[in-house]
Amino acid sequence: MNKNIDMVSIVMGSDSDYPIMDEAVKILKSFSVAHEVVLTSAHRSPARTSDFAQQAAERNVKVIIVGAGAAAHLAGVIASQTTLPVIGVPIDATALHGLDALLSTVQMPGGIPVATMAIGKAGAKNAALLAIRILSLTDADLQQKLCAYIDTMSQEVEKKQEDLLKKIRS
Amino acid sequence: MNKNIDMVSIVMGSDSDYPIMDEAVKILKSFSVAHEVVLTSAHRSPARTSDFAQQAAERNVKVIIVGAGAAAHLAGVIASQTTLPVIGVPIDATALHGLDALLSTVQMPGGIPVATMAIGKAGAKNAALLAIRILSLTDADLQQKLCAYIDTMSQEVEKKQEDLLKKIRS
Amino acid sequence: MNKNIDMVSIVMGSDSDYPIMDEAVKILKSFSVAHEVVLTSAHRSPARTSDFAQQAAERNVKVIIVGAGAAAHLAGVIASQTTLPVIGVPIDATALHGLDALLSTVQMPGGIPVATMAIGKAGAKNAALLAIRILSLTDADLQQKLCAYIDTMSQEVEKKQEDLLKKIRS
Amino acid sequence: MNKNIDMVSIVMGSDSDYPIMDEAVKILKSFSVAHEVVLTSAHRSPARTSDFAQQAAERNVKVIIVGAGAAAHLAGVIASQTTLPVIGVPIDATALHGLDALLSTVQMPGGIPVATMAIGKAGAKNAALLAIRILSLTDADLQQKLCAYIDTMSQEVEKKQEDLLKKIRS
Amino acid sequence: MNKNIDMVSIVMGSDSDYPIMDEAVKILKSFSVAHEVVLTSAHRSPARTSDFAQQAAERNVKVIIVGAGAAAHLAGVIASQTTLPVIGVPIDATALHGLDALLSTVQMPGGIPVATMAIGKAGAKNAALLAIRILSLTDADLQQKLCAYIDTMSQEVEKKQEDLLKKIRS
Amino acid sequence: MNKNIDMVSIVMGSDSDYPIMDEAVKILKSFSVAHEVVLTSAHRSPARTSDFAQQAAERNVKVIIVGAGAAAHLAGVIASQTTLPVIGVPIDATALHGLDALLSTVQMPGGIPVATMAIGKAGAKNAALLAIRILSLTDADLQQKLCAYIDTMSQEVEKKQEDLLKKIRS
Amino acid sequence: MNKNIDMVSIVMGSDSDYPIMDEAVKILKSFSVAHEVVLTSAHRSPARTSDFAQQAAERNVKVIIVGAGAAAHLAGVIASQTTLPVIGVPIDATALHGLDALLSTVQMPGGIPVATMAIGKAGAKNAALLAIRILSLTDADLQQKLCAYIDTMSQEVEKKQEDLLKKIRS
Amino acid sequence: MNKNIDMVSIVMGSDSDYPIMDEAVKILKSFSVAHEVVLTSAHRSPARTSDFAQQAAERNVKVIIVGAGAAAHLAGVIASQTTLPVIGVPIDATALHGLDALLSTVQMPGGIPVATMAIGKAGAKNAALLAIRILSLTDADLQQKLCAYIDTMSQEVEKKQEDLLKKIRS
Repeated sequence: MNKNIDMVSIVMGSDSDYPIMDEAVKILKSFSVAHEVVLTSAHRSPARTSDFAQQAAERNVKVIIVGAGAAAHLAGVIASQTTLPVIGVPIDATALHGLDALLSTVQMPGGIPVATMAIGKAGAKNAALLAIRILSLTDADLQQKLCAYIDTMSQEVEKKQEDLLKKIRS
Repeated sequence: MNKNIDMVSIVMGSDSDYPIMDEAVKILKSFSVAHEVVLTSAHRSPARTSDFAQQAAERNVKVIIVGAGAAAHLAGVIASQTTLPVIGVPIDATALHGLDALLSTVQMPGGIPVATMAIGKAGAKNAALLAIRILSLTDADLQQKLCAYIDTMSQEVEKKQEDLLKKIRS
Repeated sequence: MNKNIDMVSIVMGSDSDYPIMDEAVKILKSFSVAHEVVLTSAHRSPARTSDFAQQAAERNVKVIIVGAGAAAHLAGVIASQTTLPVIGVPIDATALHGLDALLSTVQMPGGIPVATMAIGKAGAKNAALLAIRILSLTDADLQQKLCAYIDTMSQEVEKKQEDLLKKIRS
Repeated sequence: MNKNIDMVSIVMGSDSDYPIMDEAVKILKSFSVAHEVVLTSAHRSPARTSDFAQQAAERNVKVIIVGAGAAAHLAGVIASQTTLPVIGVPIDATALHGLDALLSTVQMPGGIPVATMAIGKAGAKNAALLAIRILSLTDADLQQKLCAYIDTMSQEVEKKQEDLLKKIRS
Repeated sequence: MNKNIDMVSIVMGSDSDYPIMDEAVKILKSFSVAHEVVLTSAHRSPARTSDFAQQAAERNVKVIIVGAGAAAHLAGVIASQTTLPVIGVPIDATALHGLDALLSTVQMPGGIPVATMAIGKAGAKNAALLAIRILSLTDADLQQKLCAYIDTMSQEVEKKQEDLLKKIRS
Repeated sequence: MNKNIDMVSIVMGSDSDYPIMDEAVKILKSFSVAHEVVLTSAHRSPARTSDFAQQAAERNVKVIIVGAGAAAHLAGVIASQTTLPVIGVPIDATALHGLDALLSTVQMPGGIPVATMAIGKAGAKNAALLAIRILSLTDADLQQKLCAYIDTMSQEVEKKQEDLLKKIRS
Repeated sequence: MNKNIDMVSIVMGSDSDYPIMDEAVKILKSFSVAHEVVLTSAHRSPARTSDFAQQAAERNVKVIIVGAGAAAHLAGVIASQTTLPVIGVPIDATALHGLDALLSTVQMPGGIPVATMAIGKAGAKNAALLAIRILSLTDADLQQKLCAYIDTMSQEVEKKQEDLLKKIRS
Repeated sequence: MNKNIDMVSIVMGSDSDYPIMDEAVKILKSFSVAHEVVLTSAHRSPARTSDFAQQAAERNVKVIIVGAGAAAHLAGVIASQTTLPVIGVPIDATALHGLDALLSTVQMPGGIPVATMAIGKAGAKNAALLAIRILSLTDADLQQKLCAYIDTMSQEVEKKQEDLLKKIRS
């Protein structure tokens, strides 16, 4: 990875979170935004997590996306050791269907913000799109791609309307 | 307001939300970040809300903070009409203690991200701090102030420890 | 569609909601109530949604049924841009099993009502029946069909009792 | 009450619900819509409740608004004995803060719809506004008042914005 | 059914509830307690439900067991029209996993009690056992069978311990 | 207490529960049903609780009402050591507003039933009324009083309607 | 089992809990900690449960791990009859997905502590690890194994990172 | 503090938590167990928290009690950096009444246990009692005090019964 290029870091606590967080990877790829995938656990590898958080900025990471389930501390722990924007994706990994991860991620005390997304794949996708919104504040090209993306979403609704009507009528 | 200065917009759906959202105002003031306070309702003034969202970027707003309670649609409605990063603050305004506002804000479908904060004052404060983290990516002065703020928070813990021990012993 | 005929509009945010909202379609068909199916998203196609809401009344729509999942803003957004009665059907589309959609739909602030139904298929069916109750206020034929429908439901209970007893005894 | 005039009936299970349901009364008064207030309990006066439900239509009631707390059965019980549109207002009357009343009101099985509003005063207010939306389908005067009401709501947002800015600056 | 024999009535709102309520039937059979199975809906067949409730005592029913899902009003509606003990079994029949049925059944207002059991099969089984506890207050034979049942349950724990240890060791 | 008289036992885990459970005492007094008040804790006095449960039947207790908060085990622990009907009243005694007590009381596994009432005062009142429904199965006098009580409840609704209308008009 | 060796007792209310509690067994085996598996029910075998709790200490049990679902009283009932540390594992065994078991286990009133773990397999595993943390306070060998276990967990994160990156790139 | 004496450390994230955690202090004092009060935040002073966790064992701390509210990460963060038993006390500090703190504390992933207590004062008191249960495994004096404490609790129930009966009769 060229260290001079702005980068989004996608961090997760367990490799079992990858199928969810891959939604973020796919969005960043489609926008050609440089990114890396990092596995580190708030609880099982606390030193590795601290090292990552403290060195991210100097490694040219601009936004950190963090997926975690259960008592999801990873986003908060990283946010407390960096000044970069940290985006949290709660993952449905327990009997409580992600409500535990949501509350553990979003209910941060005053002082340390975590930008929390929806539980699961929609959240992972939106985390990447929020990172892009942030980066596009100072990147006109990316801004243009984002506008195109939003236009496409809107057009797809009209396209799907037609498909749906065809299906209903047939 | 000088239109050439980068600005954070603090939006709320009702003037009764101001005592909560004032926490964001206080943080932005203390960091000398330009900001405005906007009252508009997703439901009671939808046209005004659309106008705000669509014109924010050209008015040099860089980050939008939105506080709303109940079926809190305001952040999502604004996010769908701008490419700026939108931060949502759920407000405890009904019998359900903000759980309704939290889920209405955070559970956005894939495509339109809202960076959701904790319910209430902690969330409003953190919304401002997240806006500052975003702006500080390209503002070294602000970045320095943020580091100082974080150092101060850490030192205050030690200070409060001393105060607490004095209180316990006396 | 003949524009002079009173019509019920069934709106949904995603084509994946159709299997649920089809319950409403089936009821309206069985009562021979004119209806249309519209796909539009509060977040992905906000302009299309506004156009739909603002033009519905003049297109002779009398009642709007809206199905949406997650942070379900669609019913509220439409209700804020029309004076027609709007019926919301929360859809179970996330890890939270529709609790998010229910609260996002029902907890509307004072001023803009959304007539909220149960989560899922029962709600979609009842949305159509509520639309029929509304239209039958001024349509004696429809009123008669509704009475017959209710009678049939009641008779079916007795019929099912017999079937059940047969099954138990065998 | 002149029996030839279309009427909205506001029903509640306990006189302790009146301070909530008064929000509906106030709206109907301000729109000059004929209405009545009825006290009857699904559990304590079931025969009275059946009589009310079965006779409402012939008494020229057009819409029934029902407020109830706890295991709130009143709206459903009435809806099962009339073909009129029934609007339910869950009331926060127990330790569970209205979640019990909300679920008891909204989760109606397929066949019998209850148009559920938000918990408490916002819900009572919106119940009246939904009744007015329904009646205004065939009452052009009422329709005009409703448009005016919505315009006023929107203008009040702008007015409150000014007030808020004055308060902040002072 | 011999009308002079004390009887337990097992009522349910839908034939789809039978696989759950069969747990009650099985217990009553194994205790040789006379019983009947009744299908009636609070919402779809309100008159039939009233008739059942009002005539149960004179038909020698002593205890009424009621299973219902969703906004489960059936137990409360029956309890309001009889002085017999009514036992409610909430059934998991919606996206909310029976929480709606539980709250609709248990949160009865003061005046009309419903003896609420656990959600689902365990609740149906326990409903029958509660009916037997009630009947055994004045039936020494039944009381003896109940004691034997409880002894057997206790012995089965020891038996299962042995089986478990065998399984673990093998 | 005359040991030959049928008796209802009102048990609670803490004297702080008395203001709630007093609602049961008041009902039993008004029906002249013999009763006793017992303080014993599942956790702080387990032996006392076992002694109470095992001796209740021979002391002529016919129904046991149990109020408890938090992880409310008392009703279940007693029910497992008697064949008498046990009625549980969940008490709102923690930050979770009685949801913990409700679930700990109602979600009993198959084999040991606890007849669960609503959280708090309504539940305590209904517990006494359920005990009376049970005792009245074999006590014609009590049965008559119960009918009178139910009639009075119904008449009070009509009385309160008049009072309410007077208040509204004045 | 040699009665002079310190032992961890793994108790459960039903043999259907074994697949969950086996996670605790596997951890204790891998640390060579003596343990036993005990089946006893708070509700179905209360005397057996009391005997177990009262005799555990003299049988050289040092820590008791208790798994239970539904209205999970078993851990609390045991904790009230021993001075040994009791660890509770809530099990997802009902429609409420273990929320009932969690609240029944954790919300113990002041006086009798139950060390509550996460719902399900993660909780069972951690229960064994907490027992080992407790025993290792006075067992240097065990302490060393625990440090090694924690080191291994941390190294596995790095190993999995490599595996994940390989998988992504391929 | 004499560093050779076994010690319980009571840690909290904010001085506003002290009124809750004081319940633990009072219990430890009454048992003459050496203890210290430590203020450190997972988020505001992460380095201080790591230092505390990593040095606790060598400072002769034997058990760590941690109180925290909101997204309560402190107990988990400390548990991941020590092999000592860590007891978590969720504190009711937000609009969600401690449910957020409970889930953030108890739903730890497999590998790192946190012994979770009830929300609030009962939890703080029980945390100290669990620490004493742990220490008393190897301290016969403390074990004796614990037995006496449990006896006293039981006797107080009988004493309170008398007081309650006096109050009721008077």
